[in-house]
Amino acid sequence: MKLLEERIKKDGIISEGDILSVSSFLNHQMDVEFLCELGKEFERLYHGEGVTKILTIEASGIGIACLTAQYFKVPVLFAKKGRTDNISTDVYASRVYSYTHKREYSVVVSKEFLRPEDKILIIDDFLATGNAVLALAELCRTAGCEIVGVGTVIEKTYQLGRKTLEDNGLRVESLARIKKMSVENGVEFC
Amino acid sequence: MKLLEERIKKDGIISEGDILSVSSFLNHQMDVEFLCELGKEFERLYHGEGVTKILTIEASGIGIACLTAQYFKVPVLFAKKGRTDNISTDVYASRVYSYTHKREYSVVVSKEFLRPEDKILIIDDFLATGNAVLALAELCRTAGCEIVGVGTVIEKTYQLGRKTLEDNGLRVESLARIKKMSVENGVEFC
Repeated sequence: MKLLEERIKKDGIISEGDILSVSSFLNHQMDVEFLCELGKEFERLYHGEGVTKILTIEASGIGIACLTAQYFKVPVLFAKKGRTDNISTDVYASRVYSYTHKREYSVVVSKEFLRPEDKILIIDDFLATGNAVLALAELCRTAGCEIVGVGTVIEKTYQLGRKTLEDNGLRVESLARIKKMSVENGVEFC
Repeated sequence: MKLLEERIKKDGIISEGDILSVSSFLNHQMDVEFLCELGKEFERLYHGEGVTKILTIEASGIGIACLTAQYFKVPVLFAKKGRTDNISTDVYASRVYSYTHKREYSVVVSKEFLRPEDKILIIDDFLATGNAVLALAELCRTAGCEIVGVGTVIEKTYQLGRKTLEDNGLRVESLARIKKMSVENGVEFC
């Protein structure tokens, strides 16, 4: 998506350690009018697929998920992050290993909000390893719902996220696909 | 706001310990079309006040803040919760005591996104003690911005939140004001 690539080039800040900060418009400060355009694009990509609910993960997925959901006219459900112990029985839970924070955490949703009749679109801001999205997909499968697909804003194509998700039978749509990036040369898109 | 009061009566679940769960439409699963109506109401209440940015707190404030922001045509900034140690120098930080979790945590925002020229509207889902909102207000004051006011979805008027905030010079608008509630008798609004 051209609009997004231009914005990343303009406002994204790359630092050592393969870090791309887009906190001026996507995941700390949120340019809501801009995110609405991304939401419309997700709706175009998944138009007519019968999505009944959008699933995302706190905290940085919530904004883009809500602004996207209004074009699908469906509710959003966000998975909460927690410790891996002390999971109650009225939730579905799944584990994620975070390479960024070098620890495992759990993602949970209340059972009552994921139903076998649901057709889920999973939305998140970044696709890198795909671990977080895979954990969300596992919640859906435990609940017996269909996963229509995955929509991520920015994909690092040189990491294994897409392959991991596609190997698990998931359709993946990303709005900007980064081929490579470096502090010296900036971002190059696919 | 009648629409919200009716929704709370219909879908809110009260449990012992003064707990009102609205997780089916407000802060776990989010009824986005409904939340847009709340967003329009916040815009009506603060129309013409020159709001330049909406400030909220992760995670449950983000959805309502983003859906509200589109009617103001302004960005959202969400404060991140963290530990009270190890605060970096490029953020504004403030402390909150959570009575629910019986511990202190910090709220932080990047300095670059709160500017003296900003006119801030603070949005959150619940107003009870007012501690979280007060911490957000402190961030704004440290940054030297003007706070136009506070918008909360559900206010427990029998707690001290409104008084605390008004004593701090803040205008407070809540869309539903609970006078009292109990498991036996349900919710009564002001």
